Formats: sequence, C-alpha cells, structure tokens
Amino acid sequence: MRRTAFALLLLLSHACVREASARRDKGHVSVVVVGATGDLAKKYLWQGFFQLYAEQVGSGHSFSFYGGALSEAEKGAPALFRILKGLECPSGVSEERCALLKDRFPKLAQYRRLDAAEDYAALAEDVRLRLAREDLAEAGRIVYLSVPSFAYADIADKVNRSCRPGPGAWLRVVLEKPFGRDLDSAQDLAAELAKSLREDEMYRIDHYLGKQVVSQILQFRKDNRKSLEPIWNKHHIERIEIVLKETLDVKGRIQFYDQYGVIRDVMQNHLTEVLALLTMTVPADLSGSQEILRRKLRLLSTLQQMDRVSAVIGQYQAYGAEVREELNATKDHVTITPTFAGVVVYVDNAQFEGVPIFMMSGKMLDERASYARVLFRNEVFCVQDPGSLHCRPRQIVFHVGHGDLQHPAILVSKNLFQPALPDHGWKEVKGQKEALFGLPPSDYYIHVPTPHTEAYAVLISQVFHGRKDNFISTEHLLASWTFWTPLLHRLARQVPRVYPGGAANDNLLDFQLQGRGIAFATEAVVLSSQDLGGGAAAAENFQVMQGKYRNSDMVSAWAEELVRQLAADIQASAEEAVAEGGMFHLALSGGSSPLALFQRLAVHHYSFPWRHTHVWMVDERCVPLTEPSSNFHTLHEHLLRHVRMPYFNVHPMPVQLNQRLCVEEDGGPLAYERDIARLVNGSSFHFVLLGVGYDGHTASLFQGTQLEAHGDKLVALTESPAKPHQRMSLTLAAINRARRVAVLVTGRGKHEMITQLSRVKDDPRKWPVTGIKPASGKLVWYIDYEALLG
Amino acid sequence: MRRTAFALLLLLSHACVREASARRDKGHVSVVVVGATGDLAKKYLWQGFFQLYAEQVGSGHSFSFYGGALSEAEKGAPALFRILKGLECPSGVSEERCALLKDRFPKLAQYRRLDAAEDYAALAEDVRLRLAREDLAEAGRIVYLSVPSFAYADIADKVNRSCRPGPGAWLRVVLEKPFGRDLDSAQDLAAELAKSLREDEMYRIDHYLGKQVVSQILQFRKDNRKSLEPIWNKHHIERIEIVLKETLDVKGRIQFYDQYGVIRDVMQNHLTEVLALLTMTVPADLSGSQEILRRKLRLLSTLQQMDRVSAVIGQYQAYGAEVREELNATKDHVTITPTFAGVVVYVDNAQFEGVPIFMMSGKMLDERASYARVLFRNEVFCVQDPGSLHCRPRQIVFHVGHGDLQHPAILVSKNLFQPALPDHGWKEVKGQKEALFGLPPSDYYIHVPTPHTEAYAVLISQVFHGRKDNFISTEHLLASWTFWTPLLHRLARQVPRVYPGGAANDNLLDFQLQGRGIAFATEAVVLSSQDLGGGAAAAENFQVMQGKYRNSDMVSAWAEELVRQLAADIQASAEEAVAEGGMFHLALSGGSSPLALFQRLAVHHYSFPWRHTHVWMVDERCVPLTEPSSNFHTLHEHLLRHVRMPYFNVHPMPVQLNQRLCVEEDGGPLAYERDIARLVNGSSFHFVLLGVGYDGHTASLFQGTQLEAHGDKLVALTESPAKPHQRMSLTLAAINRARRVAVLVTGRGKHEMITQLSRVKDDPRKWPVTGIKPASGKLVWYIDYEALLG
Repeated sequence: MRRTAFALLLLLSHACVREASARRDKGHVSVVVVGATGDLAKKYLWQGFFQLYAEQVGSGHSFSFYGGALSEAEKGAPALFRILKGLECPSGVSEERCALLKDRFPKLAQYRRLDAAEDYAALAEDVRLRLAREDLAEAGRIVYLSVPSFAYADIADKVNRSCRPGPGAWLRVVLEKPFGRDLDSAQDLAAELAKSLREDEMYRIDHYLGKQVVSQILQFRKDNRKSLEPIWNKHHIERIEIVLKETLDVKGRIQFYDQYGVIRDVMQNHLTEVLALLTMTVPADLSGSQEILRRKLRLLSTLQQMDRVSAVIGQYQAYGAEVREELNATKDHVTITPTFAGVVVYVDNAQFEGVPIFMMSGKMLDERASYARVLFRNEVFCVQDPGSLHCRPRQIVFHVGHGDLQHPAILVSKNLFQPALPDHGWKEVKGQKEALFGLPPSDYYIHVPTPHTEAYAVLISQVFHGRKDNFISTEHLLASWTFWTPLLHRLARQVPRVYPGGAANDNLLDFQLQGRGIAFATEAVVLSSQDLGGGAAAAENFQVMQGKYRNSDMVSAWAEELVRQLAADIQASAEEAVAEGGMFHLALSGGSSPLALFQRLAVHHYSFPWRHTHVWMVDERCVPLTEPSSNFHTLHEHLLRHVRMPYFNVHPMPVQLNQRLCVEEDGGPLAYERDIARLVNGSSFHFVLLGVGYDGHTASLFQGTQLEAHGDKLVALTESPAKPHQRMSLTLAAINRARRVAVLVTGRGKHEMITQLSRVKDDPRKWPVTGIKPASGKLVWYIDYEALLG
Repeated sequence: MRRTAFALLLLLSHACVREASARRDKGHVSVVVVGATGDLAKKYLWQGFFQLYAEQVGSGHSFSFYGGALSEAEKGAPALFRILKGLECPSGVSEERCALLKDRFPKLAQYRRLDAAEDYAALAEDVRLRLAREDLAEAGRIVYLSVPSFAYADIADKVNRSCRPGPGAWLRVVLEKPFGRDLDSAQDLAAELAKSLREDEMYRIDHYLGKQVVSQILQFRKDNRKSLEPIWNKHHIERIEIVLKETLDVKGRIQFYDQYGVIRDVMQNHLTEVLALLTMTVPADLSGSQEILRRKLRLLSTLQQMDRVSAVIGQYQAYGAEVREELNATKDHVTITPTFAGVVVYVDNAQFEGVPIFMMSGKMLDERASYARVLFRNEVFCVQDPGSLHCRPRQIVFHVGHGDLQHPAILVSKNLFQPALPDHGWKEVKGQKEALFGLPPSDYYIHVPTPHTEAYAVLISQVFHGRKDNFISTEHLLASWTFWTPLLHRLARQVPRVYPGGAANDNLLDFQLQGRGIAFATEAVVLSSQDLGGGAAAAENFQVMQGKYRNSDMVSAWAEELVRQLAADIQASAEEAVAEGGMFHLALSGGSSPLALFQRLAVHHYSFPWRHTHVWMVDERCVPLTEPSSNFHTLHEHLLRHVRMPYFNVHPMPVQLNQRLCVEEDGGPLAYERDIARLVNGSSFHFVLLGVGYDGHTASLFQGTQLEAHGDKLVALTESPAKPHQRMSLTLAAINRARRVAVLVTGRGKHEMITQLSRVKDDPRKWPVTGIKPASGKLVWYIDYEALLG
C-alpha cells in the first residue's frame, strides 16, 4: 500500500516537473474537434486524442482540447463530458497512471458551440487568452472536421479567417471522407478548400491507412525485399484480390449511401489505397512522406483506364424498399445504387501489366472479411507427387481484420519464404481454423500485430507528428477520382444484379475475366419484379447495322460498338495481309475520332500481328513530332507505346528536316513517298483509315487544296484553314491506290455533314472526301448512329 | 459352312476383278523395307504395310513388297516369313477377309539381301522385270529405311543410282530418327541426303505424329476454334506441360542412348512436335500439307533461345554401371548423358509470350505416361463459395497414352466448354479413376479414339498418299536443331542430378521457374559416390571478382556472370537516375561484345524502367539503319524490339540524311549533338557502354583519328581502318562527360590487348581507349577471365 502511494506521488511530481519544463520546450497544442459529439467522435476520435495525450504528456508539449458542435453549451457540454468519462487507457498503461490520465484529460477539454463565424472567432480568442495567461509558446493547432463534407468549405473559411495560429506555429485541418463523389465535385471541393487552406495544412484521412496490417504493407515489402523482389511482378503473381465483405445492410445510412454506393464508399478510397501500397515502388527510405506520396501518385497515374466491362455491380434485394422507407419515396421510386461491386484493375507498367487485380466489396454478403491477397502462379513442376508442400498454392495475405481469422494478421505461405517482421509489435502465431484461404493454417507463417491499436489513434498521432504519407493529398485524391470517375459515369445507368443477401447469394455474385474485363460467371435469375428502368437497359443495345452510303458499303452502330467492329475489321485485314505477303501496311489519320480505336487496338487486340505491321501516317501537322499537337504524338501515346512494334516499322512523316518544319526544298514529301515505294508493294497500302471534317475535308486535303497539282505524287504539303496551317498529307492518288479505305465518322456534330454528303455528287475540290475512290480497293464508311441519325 | 464358303468365293472373285481393273487404273507400287527383319520392322512396319495393303487392295493399285537386310537370303527369308506369318488384320475386318488377306500378303513379299550397290541394282532390275512381265504401269516406289542413320546417305545414294522409278512415277524414301545429334551433324546428313534425294522424296518420320491424340490436335483446335480462340493465349493459359514419363531403363539400347540422351531421344523430336501443334497458328484449311508445314516452321522460328538455365537434367543411379557393362568400359568411365530432363520453353510472340511451356521426360520414373496438358489461369472470382465447379482448375489434356487413363483420350474441363470431336472415330466415355490430373473424372468431358490405330500404320498410309504434314521437312528439322543445339552444347559439360529410380525419386526431380529459367526445387542429396568429373563441376563456378585495372575499378568473372553483373549495374544506374530525375540516358556501343548483354537485358530485366530510358548510340556505321551491319539494327534485333520503349526515346545516329550517308554538309553529327543537348541534362549521359578493339580503339575512335580536331564537339564523323570505313561516333569529350562509363571486354582474343593496355601510359592517339577519363564520372572495366587471364 505504501509503496503504491509513493509510486503515485513520484509519478505525479515527475509529470508536473516534466510538463512545466516542457512548456518552455515544445509549445502548446490546441485541438479542436468539430462535430465533437457525433458518432465518429464518440467512438474513435476522443479516444484517439486521449491516447495522443497519454503518449505525449511527458514529451514537452502541453495541450488543450475543444469539442465543438452546433448545439448550445447546455446540451453539448454534458454530451461531451459523457464521452470523455468513457475513455479507456491504451493497453500497457498502469492502473495508477491510467487513473491520473483519466482524471486530468477532461479538465483540459471544453465544449464550445461552433456554428457562426463569431463562434470560431470567440474560440480563437479563447485560445489566445489561454496562451497569454499561461505564458505558453504555441506549437500548433489541430482542427478535426468530423462533419458532413458539404460543411467543409464553410468551416475551412472560418478557420482561415479567425483561427490561424500565430507565426511559427502550424495549423493542421483533418478532413473525413467523402471528398466529392466524382472528379468534378472533388475538384470543386478541393478548389474551395484551397481558398482557405494550404496543401500542407490539410490532412484528408482514410482510416483504412491506419489499420495495423495496411500500415505495415510498405514496411513488409521493404523488410522482405530480398525475397519479394524476384517474385513481386507479372511473371510470378497470378492475381491480386482486395476484398472488403460485409454482412450488414445500410439501414440508417441510406441518406448518405444512396448518393454514393459501394464503389465510392470503399473502393475509390480504402481499396485503392491498398492497391497502391501493394503495387507502388517502395522507396529505400520509408521515413520521408514526400517520397512515398510521390511514388503512390505515380502508381495511380499508371492504372489502366477502365471501361464498361471493368466492373460488375449488384444490389441486395431489400435495398430498394429500405431506400423508399428512409427517403420517404413513393412506391415507384427506383434506385440503381450498387451495394456490391466486383472490379478488375490493371497496372499499366512493366512490373504488373496483365496481372488482374480484383477488387470486391459488398453489403449483405455471407461473411465479414477484409483482406488483400496476392496469389502467386504455380511455378513448380512436380514430377511425381503433386501433393508436396512445395507444389501447393503460394500466397501472401494481408488480413486486415475479421474473416476466418477474426484478427489482423499477415500470412505468408511456407513454400514462399519466412517473412521478416519487426520484433516489436508483431508476433508469430499458429492458426486455429481448418483452412485459411484454401490451405491448412500449418501451410503459413502467421504474424499478428500486438497489441492491437485503433486506426484513428494511429492516424491522429501522425497528424500530431506532421507525418503525411498516410493521408490523401489533393493531387492523390484527384488522381484516384480521375481513375474511378469514367467507370462511375458508365455505371450510372447500369442496372445492378439483385441478390438476396447472406448465404442465399450462393454463386450469384461470382464473376470472371472476359478479355480485359469481367462479367458475372452465372446467368442472372430474376429475383424481383421491381421495375428497373427500361431506358437504362435499352441503352445496352449493341447492334451493328450494315448498309450503303454514297454507293459504298457502310457499317453503323453506337460509337463504342462501331469502334469495336472497325478494330476487328482492321485486324482481319492485317491477318490476311500477313498470311499473304508477310507484312501489313496500315496508314492512320490524326484527329480525335480514331482515339477510341487506337485505345481499343492497344488494349484488346493482343493477337494483332504488330510485329509484321508497318504504321504510316495519313497526314501530319508541321510541328515537331514530340509536340502533343502532332498527330504522330497522339498515335504514339494512344497506340504505339502500348504495343511491341519494330522501330523500323513506324513511319512518322518527315515534317522536320534540317532543323526546320515542312520546307519544300527539304523534300519531306518526296522522302516519305520514297519510303512508301521502297516498302509497300505497289505503294498500295493494305488499309487506310480516314476521318472527315465538318467542312468535308479528309486527310489534310482541304477545300481549296490544289488537288490536281498533286498529279501522281503520293505525298504533298498542304494548307489547312485551321492552325497550325501547314500540313503534310497523303494525296488522293496515294489513298486511292489502297486495298481498303475506311472513313470513320462519329458524333452528333458530324450529322449535318453526313446528311449533306449523302446528297452531293463527287466534287473533290469542294468536298475533298468525295474524291476517295479506291481504284481497285474497297471503301467502307463507319458512321455511328449519332452522326448518321443526329 | 456352305454360306461361309460361298461368301469367301464371292469375296475372292470380287477382289480379283477389282485388282485386274485397278492395275490399269492407278498403277503398281513397290515397297522396299530396308532393315526388314529388325525390331522396328518386326513390331510395326510390316504390320503397317499389311494394313495399307488391306485398305488399298480394292483401290486400283497393285503392290509388291521387298524386305531387304544385310543377311544372306538363307537366313533373311525365313526371318521375314516368320514376321509376315504373325501379322494381324486391322479391327473391323471380317474373319473371312482376314484369312484371305493373310494368305495373299506374304505371296506379294520377298526377301532380298541389300548391301552392296549391285544388290540395289538387282532389286531394281527385278522390279523392272516384274512390271514388264505383268504389264503393269508404275505408280511409285516406297523405300523405308529402318537402319541406323549412319547408313542413310550410302543407301540413299544407291537408291538414287539404281532404284529410281521410271518417268511419271514417284519415289518416296522414309527415314527414321535420329536425324543427326546437333545442328551441324543434321546439316551434314541433310546435305548428304540432298545429293541423292529431292526434298519432296524424303519422308522423315516421327511416329509420335501418328498417334491418334497427337494427330488430332490441329483438328481439335480447328473444330473448337470458337471456344478456344478467346482463351488460347498468354492471357488465359497459365502453363503448358508436355510430358513423356517412362518406368523402364535403357538396358540393351545403351550403345545408341549414351550418345544421345533424353533430350535428343524424345524432346528435340516428339515433344517439340507436340509443342508446335499446340502453339502454331491453325490454318483455316487443314487439307493442305504445305500450309501446315509453313506455319509449323514459323512457330519453330519464334521459340525463344534457350540458355543455361532453361533445363535441369538427371541420370538414374544405375545408368553408369549399365553403360560400363554394355560398352565394356573400365570402372573409371564416367558418363553424364541425361536420362531425365525438365525444360522450359517460351514462344516469343504476342500470343504466347511469357507462358511457360514445360517439357519433361525421363527413364526410371514412377509411372509411364505421355500427355500434353494446357492449364488455364484461374479467372473466376468466387465471392462466397470457392468449391463450386466454375471456381475449380480448368484444363485441356491431350492424353497420348498410358498414365492414369491407360488409353489415349482428350480431356476438357467441364467448366471450360463442351468440345466438338468428329462423330466418326471418337466417343465420349466416363473416367473410372478417383482423380485425373488433380480433379475428379466427373469434372471432364472425356473423348477417346475408337478404334485404336497404330501410329506407324497411320503414317505409312500417309506416305502412300503423299501427305507430308506429319513428316519432318529439312527446313523444319534444322529449325528444331537450331533451337535445341545451343542448349545441348551447354549441357554437354553439366553433371546431371543422380536419382534412384521409381517411387524413391520422391521430390528429387521436381523443378521450378526461376526468372526465365528453371532449377531443381529441392536441394540435391548425394546418392552416389561416383566420380562425376571435377572439371565439369568446376566450370559451374560463378564468382565475380573486384579489382583495379589502369587505376580504375575492374569487375571480372566468367563471361556469362560478367554480363549478368554488368546488366545488374546498368539497371541499378537506371533506377537511381529515374528516381532522381525521372529519366535514364544510356549510350550503347555496337560490336559483338555487348550482344549477350542486350539479350540479358531484353529477357531477364523485365523491371528495367524502359519507359523512362533514352537509348543513344555510342557509334554507328555509315550504312542505312535497316542494314544488318548497322549497329542500331543489331541493337534493335537483340534489345529494342523485345522491350516497350517509347519511340521518342530511341535515338539512332542520323547517318542517313538527304538520301545519302554521312556527308559532312548534311550536319548529322551536329543534329545528334543538338538532340543530346536538348534532352540530356548537361549532355552528360548516365551510362556509356564501350568496348575495346584488338587495336585499342573504342567507340569509333581509331588509331589515327584526329582526336584533338574534335575539340568540344560531342559527335564526329570518323574513319575506320576496317570496312565500312565511314563512321559516326561520340567523341572523347562526350564520353568523358558521362556519369558512368563501362568498358566491356570479353574473350581470349582480347587478352593480348588487355595485357598491353595494363602497361602503357595514357596515349589516346595510339590507344584511343586510354583517353577515357570521365571528368566527374566513374570508369569501370568489365573484363572476363578469358580476356584477363588468357
């Protein structure tokens, strides 16, 4: 008894001495929690700040805490007091110390109504007075916004106006997701915030990054670099799965959820963060936030653009009724917000290209589980006994929580390597379950973090330390939205598959790769007679129509399907030409119309005989090839750099010779013509892709181009009415020698020209495109429905 | 009884009538089997010819058969007679007809001694007389050489001299493997044969191609094209296994076997044929032999060159003793002929690149089995139940024979598709075993050929019909040897792992991928104290030595390891540069020394940051870039075309301007210098790779080059004493600005220069390489042991 009392006394006096000296040392920190009595604050934030206080109490800093909300003090103060009474000490703190901390912490905290600008000003004044009264140097201020995101800009403005600390002290404003619901809204929000806060002052939190296993990923990759480096790439990784399964529904959150859905709720943020941690390059030094953020950003920019087939979506059966109830909607209210999604993502770099990265998340599934799993290819050839350990599947699982294990853990197959984990904070355990991810637990090295720490506490501590790598920078946020937004827009009209929920889902939500995309693996069973909106479903009609236009063949369809057909036709031509003569000569136009085609060829046509294809330019602007406005540069960005084509098979037009652009005397057209004659049999391209302009121009042959002056020349310098005026172009003579000519026309803007062209006679001087008359080849028009029908 | 006799009579009369009329229709065929009483003839050939006769007897052809061997007729004739007596009718032939055929066939056959030239002349005379005597038109002659291959050229010569048929009739000479033991010997043999036989007259047989499942592969791929096309590529195939396991040893065949080993015995031929059938493109029309052979040849030429790590080899423990016994060798006789091999092969085209194709074969293994297995990637994401059928492994197995099924079959996983097989000749069955290739038989569609046909009978029929696609053309043979020979030469000094044989092999022979190669998966256990030749083992010593040379750092090792080190150093430089400034500028030399380096970088350094690398030329010959003698062309062939590098990052020297080569006034050097200045920070390359010539030249700076005239210029035109004389080269000024310069020197031929250079002072006019003195960068010499030590 006496010993305990003495120890307590000692502890107190030490703390006092330390605090007294500390004040002079490192300065005072004011913490403001806006939304201080909300759910999140109640459950995690105050606990996190309490832990921060417990850790820092002897470090040389002093603290004061302000809990702010919209309520009057009479209502808010007791609510805050109740929360603070319920705080728990971090594990490892002695009972005596805990009692002391719990006694002191509430005394450092006060409730304030924070609503109007005056409230913020009053708060700032209070801080100022306290600092002056207690003769405290100020270290900085943390303002934690635990409020709906629509309030951010306004609060940030008030903070900026009245709550900035004095010179030399920092301001850190913590923000909770959502940070917008697509790229535009995220940009707007970011722009709003930027009016009040500097980038280094903003801490956008993603609590997933504070989870022990997630925050260990980079360190794990670094510490096990020697074992991982040889296998952490497309040659060894079969697939990556990033999964967050939930058993609950979204009742009570529908006001929020129905605006967002599963992809915005957990994929754009949590799962994308995990993806980045798994696939970014690991800096040699993990102590610098900047370098980590820089590499994460680089990774986000190398994600391959998603399209319609990159995702499958579902909605649990009861969701519609829940929405109608919570939103007080009528019976015919339909929602197509997905509560389940499966997505396939590809990283477009040499290390990971082609490795499918599956993300999957849903409400009302059979279990709660959250993990990232890296499954390696089976690389062992078992000559006699396929059951041996080294013949079995090999995987690394970052088990974030719940699931079969019920606790966070890192699992590494024993037939991979024995992982290194920090001695401190991690321990090895044996698994108890029958099977983990398809294998007996004895097949793994299993390491668990110990003690367990709460994500928010970890992140709050990092805010305090000014460590930014686990927070979302503006650049990073916009990169993530840039990646997700096109998919979200495409899905906005797509009807999700309805699933019953729980075990009854059975195989209904299973999905599988199809080309570069995914599709549900099983046929849908109609579970509900809910009217899902015929309009949306009707838009998924992909028919291709064959017809005639200007006495030539015409293919017509919605733009996406039209491009698909054209790409297939080009590949068929290529294969035929290669089979016949070993080489395929393809001449491509500039402009924006063929971009989707280039992308399709780059991504989906992996069996295209690129190695036996020569690519020529139909026309070029007289700018250096490395300029983004160069047709060749566009072609390179969207197609050439994605495929393996011999250097010699790529033929940019020689617009730059002798350090100058398109000078007649430099003989660029003649040089190109000679190259064509040398390589292309009879100077007759196998396939020429053209577009047509609003004014009827094609290639760079414009109204007023002296076509007859070209004579037999295959290449000529021309003048465009638009800038840059100077162009180099194939002539009609060159185009009309081709075996096959395709004119691609898309978009409503072309409707008028298409209508007009359908009526006029051939008059190449007025409408150069009407001069396209392949002598012995074939002309096909590819016109999308918008251009055709308006 | 009476009915039977009557039927027989009817049958006989029909046959006679038909044969009589047929003689006039299609002509007489003479078949000569040389080696007519050997094992192969006894077991398969006569049976095959008997079947041919049974099939063709009513077709309009008449036949005579000659069995030839070295023995006198007194000995040979009874031996042949015994063989013919034992022949069996094909299934489906009625008993009566069988009795008739068996009675007639031996009457059409006669034994002849075939040894000296006169024997062949006499045979020819006999044929001539018979044709004349019986007033037969001649259709053609089949000469089947079932003799050791050393006798081929001689026999072909005798056949050519005296046994050719008359005008209008064909000659077909069938040859049995081996067709050489490496590329040189195969070429020699082919050249010898070509003196006597035209290509269309030679039928090199690989009996594996006559096996029912193997000969069905192309047809299967064609008939199931719709299902296979989307998945028959690198995106869906995880691996391919081509396996031929045997339980027997090679006793009794050692005289032959010890000269060849398992790779020559079954891989270069049988398993390579299967590989080709699985991965070649399938012609739309399978009726034309030429097109099939052309495509097969194209496939063979796209196989990626193998190297030291492409194979693992083993030898069963008793083999050494068996060899000593059969070859009457002394106790210290050592053989390192492999009786087991595992090989990994890659097809270097867009369809299959990166898919490991494992070949495995061995004697004294645990089972007899022969199959090709295509295992698909797991592409399904099972959200709730990973045990469902559609989540299980998917594979197609071409089961050639034996193994778990004990009969030929084609297995297709039910979660793939229901295969189409010809109604005629194939039927679907249920599997009886517990598991086939890791899955329950109920997981597969299983089709078996019916009735069973013998490979030799099939191929003999094809010879008769002049159908060549299942035979090995000379081009095809040499392409296969071109592929295998470098590996065989590398393995010629490698000691195989010794294995006990049978079940006791356990996991000892399991192997696994390592980078692009393979290695045994388990540590070796020494099973025998047999002296395996220390010399060979010592050659596997890959140490890298660090030292000093001409006051700079030097790295030395055996050539292969040296290149490995240099490649690793370049990658390290690249990563550093990219991390630092986003780009890596690499200048590469021409010449033969860096070829191995280029190949290594192309194949093994998949994580090299090519997208952020600019490649520059150290020097160039004044020839068009598309000439094979161009340095750039060499670089392109060995490196650039294998990696994905932006077009703009590739910088060939502008040796050709204004349609002419290296004319001072065209300003090529200045243009290149400007490009360097524009893109490379401070015109200071991150890495310059040089070689050194026998005369001490480096880059294209030769003895006598007016180095001082270069001044500050970075690029200059120079003159080489060797052709082509005109060169463009980086100057010493450019090289000495670099951050890191590596001089790579390999081969015994350089030893003298390296010795001399180690003694001389700097004298760039005499030894240009001594002018390499990076101002603030680092020079490292990479010299292999042969160049260093002689």
